[in-house]
Amino acid sequence: MQLPSLTWLMQLPGWGNTYLLASATESATEASSEAEYGTLLLTAVLLSLVVIYLASKLGGEFSNRVGLPPVLGELVGGVLVGVSALHLLAFPEAGVEPSSSLIIRFLESTGGLTPDLAGAVFRDQNDVISVLAEIGVVILLFEIGLESNLKELLDVGIQATLVAVVGVAVPFAAGTAGLMVFFGISAVPAIFAGAALTATSIGITSKVLSELGRLNSKEGQIILGAAVIDDVLGIIVLAVVASLAKTGEIDVTNVVYLILSASGFLIGAILLGKVFNKTFVSVVDLFKTRGGIVIPAIIFAYAMAYLAAVIHLEAILGAFAAGLVLDETDKRKELQRQVIPIADILVPIFFVTVGAKTDLGVLNPANPTNREGLLIASFLIAIAIVGKVVTGLAVFGQPGINRLAIGVGMIPRGEVGLVFAGVGSASGALSKPLEAAIIMMVILTTFLAPPLLRFVFPDSEPAVESAEAVPELDRAANRQP
Amino acid sequence: MQLPSLTWLMQLPGWGNTYLLASATESATEASSEAEYGTLLLTAVLLSLVVIYLASKLGGEFSNRVGLPPVLGELVGGVLVGVSALHLLAFPEAGVEPSSSLIIRFLESTGGLTPDLAGAVFRDQNDVISVLAEIGVVILLFEIGLESNLKELLDVGIQATLVAVVGVAVPFAAGTAGLMVFFGISAVPAIFAGAALTATSIGITSKVLSELGRLNSKEGQIILGAAVIDDVLGIIVLAVVASLAKTGEIDVTNVVYLILSASGFLIGAILLGKVFNKTFVSVVDLFKTRGGIVIPAIIFAYAMAYLAAVIHLEAILGAFAAGLVLDETDKRKELQRQVIPIADILVPIFFVTVGAKTDLGVLNPANPTNREGLLIASFLIAIAIVGKVVTGLAVFGQPGINRLAIGVGMIPRGEVGLVFAGVGSASGALSKPLEAAIIMMVILTTFLAPPLLRFVFPDSEPAVESAEAVPELDRAANRQP
Repeated sequence: MQLPSLTWLMQLPGWGNTYLLASATESATEASSEAEYGTLLLTAVLLSLVVIYLASKLGGEFSNRVGLPPVLGELVGGVLVGVSALHLLAFPEAGVEPSSSLIIRFLESTGGLTPDLAGAVFRDQNDVISVLAEIGVVILLFEIGLESNLKELLDVGIQATLVAVVGVAVPFAAGTAGLMVFFGISAVPAIFAGAALTATSIGITSKVLSELGRLNSKEGQIILGAAVIDDVLGIIVLAVVASLAKTGEIDVTNVVYLILSASGFLIGAILLGKVFNKTFVSVVDLFKTRGGIVIPAIIFAYAMAYLAAVIHLEAILGAFAAGLVLDETDKRKELQRQVIPIADILVPIFFVTVGAKTDLGVLNPANPTNREGLLIASFLIAIAIVGKVVTGLAVFGQPGINRLAIGVGMIPRGEVGLVFAGVGSASGALSKPLEAAIIMMVILTTFLAPPLLRFVFPDSEPAVESAEAVPELDRAANRQP
Repeated sequence: MQLPSLTWLMQLPGWGNTYLLASATESATEASSEAEYGTLLLTAVLLSLVVIYLASKLGGEFSNRVGLPPVLGELVGGVLVGVSALHLLAFPEAGVEPSSSLIIRFLESTGGLTPDLAGAVFRDQNDVISVLAEIGVVILLFEIGLESNLKELLDVGIQATLVAVVGVAVPFAAGTAGLMVFFGISAVPAIFAGAALTATSIGITSKVLSELGRLNSKEGQIILGAAVIDDVLGIIVLAVVASLAKTGEIDVTNVVYLILSASGFLIGAILLGKVFNKTFVSVVDLFKTRGGIVIPAIIFAYAMAYLAAVIHLEAILGAFAAGLVLDETDKRKELQRQVIPIADILVPIFFVTVGAKTDLGVLNPANPTNREGLLIASFLIAIAIVGKVVTGLAVFGQPGINRLAIGVGMIPRGEVGLVFAGVGSASGALSKPLEAAIIMMVILTTFLAPPLLRFVFPDSEPAVESAEAVPELDRAANRQP
């Protein structure tokens, strides 16, 4: 592709004076090569997004088809197109050539990308995709906030809270201590990995429970309530740990400050939110043009995300608080309905890039330097399962309740676990083997939860949508009176 | 804000071998400063988006409140926050310091942005916002394609086609010739400006007609049909003109090639689409997970946009063709419903940045060097009005039809006119005064159309939603039996 000939720009007889002539030709020449570059960058981003969406949709659908949560497939889809396998998506790092990205090479052969521009397009396209992925996780946590009902959270009460607290404390303490004692890992990475063991995935848990027709059982209610509280705790833990990672050492004053500011931010947002709610609804009622609900909500979410980031918490904590606040408004249903398609196109960018950036090569047992990483992964997985199964023992005053089922229901990690891996890796707190071990833990707990839950709920009636995928449950259901 | 202390990274006693130690510390140090930078970039983008959404919503609502189309207010909102006024959004260009962006200065004082990183954040944030704006216009044209019904387009038939063709040919010919003859502007910029005079805004026209309760009158039907065809013609003209601007000279073979490839691309997409429709619907029917309709549709739209860009047409042409194709499917309604919120959060980025990048200073009559630009603007506005009013004369065999109303109904330019201004400016075809003159023309035709339409439809019954904004029409309606 040749550069545009600019001869016509050099002769603008109509612009009779030197000032305009000079500024017009100068800025036009510049604008022209900028536009050329802009088109290249746009095509690179469009192509990356097509690859990301294909990986997320095919992975998600396949995963769903075999009875596993779609998010797992999106992650695996990302691994397949990323640096571990197909190299369609590659990311600029020390020693990584632009040509290691198949998309860049494809653009060089079809899209007129010249080798001297390849480096800039590679870097800028990665900036755009990375920011889109971060906006994706902001939107995801905003949506989780919208889905988390504060009142329900308080209604399921003490049982769910106990399960949640035990389910955060045990894996965190056992994980962190184990990594430090048995593996000699220093405090900050050990705390980060321990923290990544805490948060149960609401999405995955509720999906699996609904597939088993157990969403409204007593066990299901406790699991769901605990998963909600768990998620909030996990986010506070994440904010604390991520800030810890940033300052680089364990400073008790700092920890207290962070716990206070994280809790204060969330509680303050919720309290102020009760006032803000009415303002939001009355402002939105004034709006008559398109996007009258979703744009003010997004402004609020992004502003809260900005605020949280600026006071050294995480942007996602702000977005989650914004979601919790807006959850209380009359506009919630309409807002949720409109946020879904936005989340659908932004959230997969996060999961697929997390997968694509993960170099599973570090877990290859054929390489002797990897063996310690694999050992860590096995240890994390054991703690992840045992640490949640014991939560069932915390339930009291509920005779005949299936304690094992509650514990098993808390096993799947997911979105938030991956957020830990992503944030931890980005902040430099996690070494690559440790990050890969966390991702292995997330993948495996997510893989194991559905069959384990079927095992501990032997008399489950499958919901219609899972009947096809889980034929053995049909038979189980048929055995019932 | 201090850079994170990385001492803890230097001592990972657990990683007993040099290989892992070296790679972990090296990549962690790098990842940490990358994450620091990533957070800064994310906060800059979030803050810019908050400003963009505030400008678009407040501008759009105000515009709607005073009875004008919201898109006009989004553009004016962009002008207010952009380089012409508040300087909240500024864009990297020769001689523009990062500190000219108030957002960058705000981040320096609150967000821990250091002056040495300000330049990089300023540039990268602009890359992200520019790509988002371009994705916004891709989504806009995809949505316009989804809204444009090919069958209806064929049903309103010859009258609408005649009006559309006259309404493209007259302003284009008169505009281009006038600019070359009276103002001595060379061919390519003159053709670009002439082309920007062609496309009637479907959105604005249909909105105004519905506000006047005239959407289903004979005149209304012809105007709407013509506006649809007009939009397609305008997009072909845009593709031809933009490619012309890229190759830099008027090459008849190239023009014919471009007209053929543009038409071929659209017609081919539509014909292939008849087959693809069934495939799309059956693939979408297989999908059970979230985003099952919208993700495949977006994959198709982005892939078509990529394809169009690669064969030297415009990305938006591909997105429009994708919309026309998917318009024919049974899934259209559900797809349209889901695309609306996505468009709501992406499209305003385009309009606001178009406004924000427009330096209205070049149209300040106090500066003598600007006077020729203002003269051009006046000329373009005259041609824009007269060139569309004459289209009413092309209607035949419809006794008693309000020819003037049809002509006036075609006056408002809008989305596509602004797309011309944006693409033209980005491709270097338009000097800044010429671009500003086009934007003035779009703003003024949009401003003038609603009052003019009320004037030529004196007995209009206002629709309920406009009753408040247009009190005098209440009285007109009350005069009717």
